[in-house]
Amino acid sequence: MDLTYDWVVGFTDGEGCFYVGINKHPEMSAGYQVLPEFRIVQHKRDIQILYALKRFFQAGVVRQNNEDRYELRIRKLESLEKVVDFFEKHPLKTKKNVDFQHFSRVIRWMKEGKHLSKEGLIQIAQLVREMNTGNKPQAEAILQELQSTG
Amino acid sequence: MDLTYDWVVGFTDGEGCFYVGINKHPEMSAGYQVLPEFRIVQHKRDIQILYALKRFFQAGVVRQNNEDRYELRIRKLESLEKVVDFFEKHPLKTKKNVDFQHFSRVIRWMKEGKHLSKEGLIQIAQLVREMNTGNKPQAEAILQELQSTG
Repeated sequence: MDLTYDWVVGFTDGEGCFYVGINKHPEMSAGYQVLPEFRIVQHKRDIQILYALKRFFQAGVVRQNNEDRYELRIRKLESLEKVVDFFEKHPLKTKKNVDFQHFSRVIRWMKEGKHLSKEGLIQIAQLVREMNTGNKPQAEAILQELQSTG
Repeated sequence: MDLTYDWVVGFTDGEGCFYVGINKHPEMSAGYQVLPEFRIVQHKRDIQILYALKRFFQAGVVRQNNEDRYELRIRKLESLEKVVDFFEKHPLKTKKNVDFQHFSRVIRWMKEGKHLSKEGLIQIAQLVREMNTGNKPQAEAILQELQSTG
């Protein structure tokens, strides 16, 4: 199945999710791990679409999301850079583009190693708090913790 | 906002719904009214996408779906014929295309007046029963009623 650029943009406007998780991780220098991911979930009847998107982006894994749903999940930073490049050249048309802009900035910052410092983590958590698909309570809790410690 | 054909196909693969309702309606010759509709629901933050799609199809109304969600709904038979024409020329890529094929057949049958006879209604209800987005219990109940009466 061949996917055109515009089809991928339209489908992602509907079904795509730009997500940034921030988890406690004592081994990381700032105590937290930033985990951005691009995800598309479909009913298992449409698993072939997920494989077509995996070929399109040449990245990610198709895995079970829950009982009858599967997802394409892209987590590798180099792969996410390609995803970000694509959606910068071919912009989303829904308000998901606002989330994408935040996501894109997080990816750029991570490339620069910003997530390894406390100041960078605070900036990332502040962005994530504003994302519709972000984990707001998680970001809020992390901000409180990071900002309360000297 | 300009929408390309492929974007509309991709977005509909994600968010579109081809639905056929069948309701009791004593004034109709066969006792039932067939109500096909094409529907796209979005969070109110993306209401401008619904208006862009309304302009694209030159059809439908944008209305509140529930508290923070809005929908573009196309119900007029002549408008649905245009929608069907579009998705026949530009096929959906997900399994939603199977539902669309059933929907398309219902529209064609309605144009021929098939929904006005009991035999036609039975055929329509049989198709709707197979649709993922169809109201299966409703279709099943109608089939039992129509097939039990002489």
